[in-house]
Amino acid sequence: MGLPLLALVCCALMAWQHCAAEAAKARHFKWEISNMFWSPDCEEKVVIGINGQFPGPTIRARAGDTIHVQLKNALHTEGVVIHWHGIRQIGTPWADGTAAISQCAINPEETFTYRFVVDKPGTYFYHGHYGMQRAAGLYGSLIVDVAEGKEEPFKYDGELNLLLSDWYHESIHTQMVALSSKPFRWIGEPQSLLINGRGQFNCSLAAAHTQGANQCAAAVNTQCAPVVFPVQPNKTYRLRVASTTSLASLNLAIRNHKLTVVEADGSYVDPFVVDDIDLYSGDSYSVLLTTDQDTSSNYWVSVGVRGRLPKTAPALAVLNYGPNRASKLPALAPPVTPAWDDYDHSKAFTYRIRARAGTPRPPATADRRIELLNTQNKMDGHIKWSINNVSMVLPATPYLGSLKMGLKSTLAAARPAETFSRGYDVTLPPPNPNTTVGDNVYVLAHNTTVDVVLQNANALSRNVSEVHPWHLHGHDFWVLGYGDGAYRGDAADEARLNLRDPPLQNTAVIFPYGWTLLRFVADNPGVWAFHCHIEPHLHMGMGVIFAEAVDLVGQVPNEAVSCGATAAALMAGAHL
Amino acid sequence: MGLPLLALVCCALMAWQHCAAEAAKARHFKWEISNMFWSPDCEEKVVIGINGQFPGPTIRARAGDTIHVQLKNALHTEGVVIHWHGIRQIGTPWADGTAAISQCAINPEETFTYRFVVDKPGTYFYHGHYGMQRAAGLYGSLIVDVAEGKEEPFKYDGELNLLLSDWYHESIHTQMVALSSKPFRWIGEPQSLLINGRGQFNCSLAAAHTQGANQCAAAVNTQCAPVVFPVQPNKTYRLRVASTTSLASLNLAIRNHKLTVVEADGSYVDPFVVDDIDLYSGDSYSVLLTTDQDTSSNYWVSVGVRGRLPKTAPALAVLNYGPNRASKLPALAPPVTPAWDDYDHSKAFTYRIRARAGTPRPPATADRRIELLNTQNKMDGHIKWSINNVSMVLPATPYLGSLKMGLKSTLAAARPAETFSRGYDVTLPPPNPNTTVGDNVYVLAHNTTVDVVLQNANALSRNVSEVHPWHLHGHDFWVLGYGDGAYRGDAADEARLNLRDPPLQNTAVIFPYGWTLLRFVADNPGVWAFHCHIEPHLHMGMGVIFAEAVDLVGQVPNEAVSCGATAAALMAGAHL
Repeated sequence: MGLPLLALVCCALMAWQHCAAEAAKARHFKWEISNMFWSPDCEEKVVIGINGQFPGPTIRARAGDTIHVQLKNALHTEGVVIHWHGIRQIGTPWADGTAAISQCAINPEETFTYRFVVDKPGTYFYHGHYGMQRAAGLYGSLIVDVAEGKEEPFKYDGELNLLLSDWYHESIHTQMVALSSKPFRWIGEPQSLLINGRGQFNCSLAAAHTQGANQCAAAVNTQCAPVVFPVQPNKTYRLRVASTTSLASLNLAIRNHKLTVVEADGSYVDPFVVDDIDLYSGDSYSVLLTTDQDTSSNYWVSVGVRGRLPKTAPALAVLNYGPNRASKLPALAPPVTPAWDDYDHSKAFTYRIRARAGTPRPPATADRRIELLNTQNKMDGHIKWSINNVSMVLPATPYLGSLKMGLKSTLAAARPAETFSRGYDVTLPPPNPNTTVGDNVYVLAHNTTVDVVLQNANALSRNVSEVHPWHLHGHDFWVLGYGDGAYRGDAADEARLNLRDPPLQNTAVIFPYGWTLLRFVADNPGVWAFHCHIEPHLHMGMGVIFAEAVDLVGQVPNEAVSCGATAAALMAGAHL
Repeated sequence: MGLPLLALVCCALMAWQHCAAEAAKARHFKWEISNMFWSPDCEEKVVIGINGQFPGPTIRARAGDTIHVQLKNALHTEGVVIHWHGIRQIGTPWADGTAAISQCAINPEETFTYRFVVDKPGTYFYHGHYGMQRAAGLYGSLIVDVAEGKEEPFKYDGELNLLLSDWYHESIHTQMVALSSKPFRWIGEPQSLLINGRGQFNCSLAAAHTQGANQCAAAVNTQCAPVVFPVQPNKTYRLRVASTTSLASLNLAIRNHKLTVVEADGSYVDPFVVDDIDLYSGDSYSVLLTTDQDTSSNYWVSVGVRGRLPKTAPALAVLNYGPNRASKLPALAPPVTPAWDDYDHSKAFTYRIRARAGTPRPPATADRRIELLNTQNKMDGHIKWSINNVSMVLPATPYLGSLKMGLKSTLAAARPAETFSRGYDVTLPPPNPNTTVGDNVYVLAHNTTVDVVLQNANALSRNVSEVHPWHLHGHDFWVLGYGDGAYRGDAADEARLNLRDPPLQNTAVIFPYGWTLLRFVADNPGVWAFHCHIEPHLHMGMGVIFAEAVDLVGQVPNEAVSCGATAAALMAGAHL
């Protein structure tokens, strides 16, 4: 908020020349959000667009810059918010863009300005965080370059941006009704996968182009024409890849090309080379690719489904080696996505992610350990996801304002459990499948170090345990380790932890029947969501809230609390 | 608001026995509004329901009662309001339920309590008044009986309630996008007509039952099974009929039965007998029917489309003469709806509506005349409906609060025009089809008498002029007269006016190329919508606002202004 001023003060105190190079910029954007017709996969549906675009415009900034997004809600009857995924919002928790948590949803015709600093270079994205609006197409890329005068710890000649998503033909309104219905109705698998908002439903580009049959209409529709990535031979490209899927876990591969992973979730990782990368919803990576293949050909980029029996065709794009024509068909077939249930392949990839030297290291010990058992449950004819047997419901009035103002009855008297029964058998359906709902708010003391054990388990059906990517707002966490089966905290489990070079991430997966142990420092006062990033799972209650040193939060802007109990109290004369 | 207390005081002052019979009641309702799956015409879609019902529950009260509806919004991301159609809200303009006009939309998970007095007996209904939520099924009946100890001026043995509507398979979200799109997309005709929320798409009950072909699946689905109205022979029934259609103008007839019209829009009318009645969206009537036909048969009730080339099959219900079985097929075919463009038939019906003796009569003269030319226009690739060439847009902050608080820049400096060019040729498409948008707020002085001339005209296409039913909030008006062609205010036009027994109504139609003259007294401080009741037309800007003696409005409840500029001002220390 005060940073541009700070920059000016800095400039006043320093030699101007030096300062001009160093000073962070204020970057202003004016957005209008509205429903519009679009054909992401060649079938026309309604998407939520920004300034008439889908996906939304890419924000590009340098580390240290302040982003100002003046956002007008031009939806007809729906509120809206935008979450800046991976941006920690240090000192600006009210700009985190989580409805019912960090701010009041922006009402139709209202304008709200997000102001926040992008403090760390990296590959990020933004998306709606109200109901299931992300799944309606409300997302875009947010890319932060190193500050002026700084350098990335790796070299490349050009960049390619790949924002990956999945797409349902059914509206999110109908999806939300289905998921909330009694009896429960599952929304099924997405109809398409999208690369930069483009896919092809019910026709295979690869098949069409190689066999001449079933020609995809995509080519004639710019909204769903396959993305072409033009490259020059014998160069190195940085691919910025992020997944904002509603449901699907993805795998990305580029025929005949190795990928060197160098960044994950906005932190550098110790580079490693793979044939393909897994992306769970909420993940982002940078990978380096060298165009060292036969230059007479183009190559398929392929994105397929992992972790669920795939019913959705892979998304394809073209790596177009200059000077080949963009429309020249790749000579070789697209890469084949690894088997959906080849978890050994998934784990092999994930376990290789280590922090690059120089990355901050975690405190040696934690002050608190919160163990969160993930189960699928029943409640009064509904199906829910629960944490320690409580399914999260969000309040009418966002927590940040109501907790800051100390409004009575904001939190239930009983705090959620810190652990679950050591005897719980994660390999079986829950013995008592019934759950309740609750606020799932954990109150964190300032600057304490918190360990979170995420424990996966069997779902309601036998022999089913799904992958869940958990995303933390307001922080990066260190991923200390993964294990199979129930976490016991014994010597064997301890031995699986990595305190030497654990990666800093904001999203980490739990594998079926397994556990993941995260550590973070509660150094960012605010109220932060921590949840499964799968949109229907969050809708079904799969999350918790961290209320962190709320007394230390700065002046919350009125426009973030202009609803519900906070508005009522402020209108009655209370102060923030 | 204070009425129950008043009733108590009244009771304290009077003999208890007498008082108990006279005292008005407080009637409490607790509603939860949510999206749900429903099959109004045997095809499953999402409707907005109340307490799991579609249509919403019927409210029944006595004149003088105070209604308390504690309404929780359980939609996921959409605001909601409920308008009590035909209730004048004397002294409670904040309970009129018009988003952006009388109150802030109720946010998801929030609760708002509507409190208002139903001062006049009559046949009313309620419905959503935000975006096009009425068309999503958010409506129900509101029936006010005469006060205890009073009597209706006609006799009957029983009542039948018929709430009529139309139904689209496309969601209102998609409909709103279509209507707002560039290029414009028309939503087309509704798929079905509904009687008490039930219809049959793509199958004719009558045909099925009489010829055995194309059997409607309706019978097996209680949500779309035809409504059966059980009656006994040789009795008189009061049919309470109201139309809350999105688009369709309707005609209701019951085979072999005459209908005696006795009430329109909550006012008694001089009884007259017809074979069928027209209902435009927003209309309500009571008609008496005597079961004087062959008692061995049941009879079809039929509702068909008027005023637009009908592409929607009539809705059917069964008048079930006891002791016949409800499932016994009527021996005679359903009545045939008059030709859609037989406007002589329509006018003949409408012109017969006269006030019953004893109805308040209008002031002999008006203090002000506002002439409103209705045209269809173009604006920057969009299609709009305009009033005096300005298409209405609603503000982010509802008028009632912002005008009451005197917030700057709430109204544009220029007030909308009071008249239009006398030379305007209503028989041709607009010579300058381009329109602008504006607030269309007319400021009315307290207790002045206002005449409104609604002038219809040719739409954008040649030889097209549509029917528009205009509905006024907060008042009844006297319908002084109708005429064909351009209103000139000359002796011939004056001769068409009826100052002797004009009906008191809240909705009045303008016929194609014609005019309608209304008179009302601005005796109810508040901010009131006056608009075409056709949902897509209102969405396209067909309305104006009457800001009436806002300085005399009582204490607006905070919860009605808890958004936008009013919330901001109040949070900053301003007072209502």
